[in-house]
Amino acid sequence: MAEQSPKLTRIGLAGLAVMGQNLALNIAQKGFPISVYNRTASKVDETVERAKAEGNLPVFGFHDPESFVQSIQKPRVIIMLVKAGAPVDQTIKTLSAYMEKGDCIIDGGKEWYENTERREKAMAELGLLYLGMGVSGGEEGARNGPSLMPGGSYEAYKYIEDIVLKVAAQVPDSGPCVTYVGKGGSGNFVKMIHNGIEYGDMQLIAEAYDVLKSVGKLSNEELKNVFSGWNKGELLSFLIEITADIFGVKDDKGDGYLVDKVLDKTGMKGTGKWTVQQAADLSIAAPTIAASLDSRFLSGLKEERIQAAKVFKASGISDILTDQVVDKEKLIDDVRQALYASKICSYAQGMNLIRAKSVEKGWGLKLGELARIWKGGCIIRAIFLDRIKKAYDRNPDLANLLVDPEFAKEIIERQSAWRRVVCLAINSGISTPGMSASLAYFDTYRRERLPANLVQAQRDYFGAHTYERVDVPGSFHTEWFKIAKKINN
Amino acid sequence: MAEQSPKLTRIGLAGLAVMGQNLALNIAQKGFPISVYNRTASKVDETVERAKAEGNLPVFGFHDPESFVQSIQKPRVIIMLVKAGAPVDQTIKTLSAYMEKGDCIIDGGKEWYENTERREKAMAELGLLYLGMGVSGGEEGARNGPSLMPGGSYEAYKYIEDIVLKVAAQVPDSGPCVTYVGKGGSGNFVKMIHNGIEYGDMQLIAEAYDVLKSVGKLSNEELKNVFSGWNKGELLSFLIEITADIFGVKDDKGDGYLVDKVLDKTGMKGTGKWTVQQAADLSIAAPTIAASLDSRFLSGLKEERIQAAKVFKASGISDILTDQVVDKEKLIDDVRQALYASKICSYAQGMNLIRAKSVEKGWGLKLGELARIWKGGCIIRAIFLDRIKKAYDRNPDLANLLVDPEFAKEIIERQSAWRRVVCLAINSGISTPGMSASLAYFDTYRRERLPANLVQAQRDYFGAHTYERVDVPGSFHTEWFKIAKKINN
Repeated sequence: MAEQSPKLTRIGLAGLAVMGQNLALNIAQKGFPISVYNRTASKVDETVERAKAEGNLPVFGFHDPESFVQSIQKPRVIIMLVKAGAPVDQTIKTLSAYMEKGDCIIDGGKEWYENTERREKAMAELGLLYLGMGVSGGEEGARNGPSLMPGGSYEAYKYIEDIVLKVAAQVPDSGPCVTYVGKGGSGNFVKMIHNGIEYGDMQLIAEAYDVLKSVGKLSNEELKNVFSGWNKGELLSFLIEITADIFGVKDDKGDGYLVDKVLDKTGMKGTGKWTVQQAADLSIAAPTIAASLDSRFLSGLKEERIQAAKVFKASGISDILTDQVVDKEKLIDDVRQALYASKICSYAQGMNLIRAKSVEKGWGLKLGELARIWKGGCIIRAIFLDRIKKAYDRNPDLANLLVDPEFAKEIIERQSAWRRVVCLAINSGISTPGMSASLAYFDTYRRERLPANLVQAQRDYFGAHTYERVDVPGSFHTEWFKIAKKINN
Repeated sequence: MAEQSPKLTRIGLAGLAVMGQNLALNIAQKGFPISVYNRTASKVDETVERAKAEGNLPVFGFHDPESFVQSIQKPRVIIMLVKAGAPVDQTIKTLSAYMEKGDCIIDGGKEWYENTERREKAMAELGLLYLGMGVSGGEEGARNGPSLMPGGSYEAYKYIEDIVLKVAAQVPDSGPCVTYVGKGGSGNFVKMIHNGIEYGDMQLIAEAYDVLKSVGKLSNEELKNVFSGWNKGELLSFLIEITADIFGVKDDKGDGYLVDKVLDKTGMKGTGKWTVQQAADLSIAAPTIAASLDSRFLSGLKEERIQAAKVFKASGISDILTDQVVDKEKLIDDVRQALYASKICSYAQGMNLIRAKSVEKGWGLKLGELARIWKGGCIIRAIFLDRIKKAYDRNPDLANLLVDPEFAKEIIERQSAWRRVVCLAINSGISTPGMSASLAYFDTYRRERLPANLVQAQRDYFGAHTYERVDVPGSFHTEWFKIAKKINN
């Protein structure tokens, strides 16, 4: 047993890896005495040490689950920050053995929403409350103010509301980055979509980088300045800010800049995959997010790409197809606009995914409120989210961000630049899958008549799947083959 | 009880909707006496009537499951063609009650492969054999020669081999369109990917149509001639053939051509969705297939698209952005090349999906052999599949169709036209999501160095996910923020 708390604490936290440790310190710093526990005892002592070092924060460590649970005031609240899946079930089992009716467990991990719903039901049978709470912001966010997306028991939420309101990131004029998301697994689901959108943002930035570097021949210093400049305008965001930072970092193991030494293989943790699979399930097009996932997959095939590059170079197809000299300033401005317009499409997809799921599950999620709690703390935090919030304030039933009057205007102003960038990339042999997919999304969504009539005619031809008509209601089938045979003979 | 068979039949078929009825007649026509059964008795009589009308084929109808099963010689084989999911379980329950050790059930429906694996296990416990057999070719194929993809019990396959070899489509020089696919649910899985590829083909054809019609201003008569012409060359295929047919069909309810009266909303049945979800699960990029699924989703939002078109037209963004006069002949030739190059990418994705699953499940699937059995009978049948078969004959371990010497050469010859078409579409405001995604896939796969280094640096910056280096082995983490802070101050 570690140091004993003088009296009962307000809340407990189990799982003291990077995120858990930082969130515990954050909670303590906001004035809530907290009990902490970890299966590996050294993590407990480490956290208590840090709490002392960072200002004698009221963090109380426990090496066994029973005394940990007993140290918390009733009704007890315990946040878990352990690996999603089986470790969560294990931790629940360990802790719930000592918990009592009315107590509450909160899962702060990256959990699949259905697991949360399963656990909420199982906990309810024991008289325990349950929340699945998305936490975004990485290490730094957890310590100083993350974006929090709690979903599940409303009663449980109300009981911790005073804590999360203070612990979350605070954004001037729009308040703490937390809200009661909704019932069931909605908190986890919304966090998953947040991550899908994050994938999209990162891919679009990477494409902007590729075009500027490969076609525009910008140096890392120039790239740093471009992104720093962008971070003062409409693109102001955490990801643009850290991108500018990255270009400035020199390699400590050799000459030049570190970014050029980083291998072009991107890892992933599963939330992007889930987002794409959910999009297919919900019949929602999310091509920008899907393109970012595919780009990660293809980045992983480094050896295959080296071989493929050899095959095509041997036939005269170089990495970059043109030696066209471009007007750097114009290119930078075009790319900024293409990035912004693509970003609108990506967020439109993400928000519509949330709405579709909300309708399916009856969660009643408020899209504007979700945009608000993403304005600070999380990885996708950006000034842009304020525009999204306002779009939904203007019209909560907005079918798609693209048709909000403000966003429509912004896209129209940028569409020429956007088309120029994608075509320049295509002619240079640079792939911009995210920007291309976004543009195709826009050009598909804005068109009253698509060539889908042909696809439906084909389906009716070979599978008798029937079709509707533009002029008369009803369902029709045509013997295309028989008619064509007559014509052809 | 319907008409009694004089002696025992060779095989039974349960489920007499369009596909089942036609497959039963096909089997009977090839000289195998067949018992047929359906829950709704009228379908049984209808099938027997058809068998008489179509040449006194040996089809014997039964109105109750027991006498149906008893009428088949031992070991009994029964093909089910009922709706995937619960109806399959129900049919198995009904039939297996009367079946004996060593008998075999074959599911010929569009079933999710894991359901087949579950059922194969359950059947094995009863001493029954089980096959999941993909059947492609629609009504016409089922009657005259489909492509058959049986997977599961090899013993069961050997027992029906004489039947399926005759029932399947026959392709000169490459034999019957059937093979033992592999163990477990591999037959269903391969059929699912076939359908995903079919989605891609149909979308790419629709985009070719859109560009030719909307930018090239081709009439339906001209389109008919273009597709008929294409069907004599490298694009020769069932889908190109029926597309040409479709353009020739006049509207019987009014003036003009029927294709123009067909509503631009595309239905779907689930296999495209599964393919995209499996791609995400297997970490395989399949952007062309995903784009075709998304296009179907967006086609469904007809009302929203009408509204969106209004919003953008009000701001001066017309349906087609340019009034550019194009050289029709040149455009037609460019589009043909773009379609063909995109098709290579789409099939590369599909084949790699099959290989990834085969590795995961230990199925040992032979990609060249699968290309062979798709050469006839099925919806994607095409001369093109012979080229794929040959590519895998040359190198069974080919990493990607794109780097096969023949395909690489074909792509190189077509890449300029391909880039011209996609850029023309982009500048005209016509979305070509499938062609764009294919091109981006090619330009990503063929590049040794991608901008994924930036994404990985970002992940290390905010999440300490670490990165690899291009020059030294190992896993690295950098305190980007701290270094940048120093630089920025």
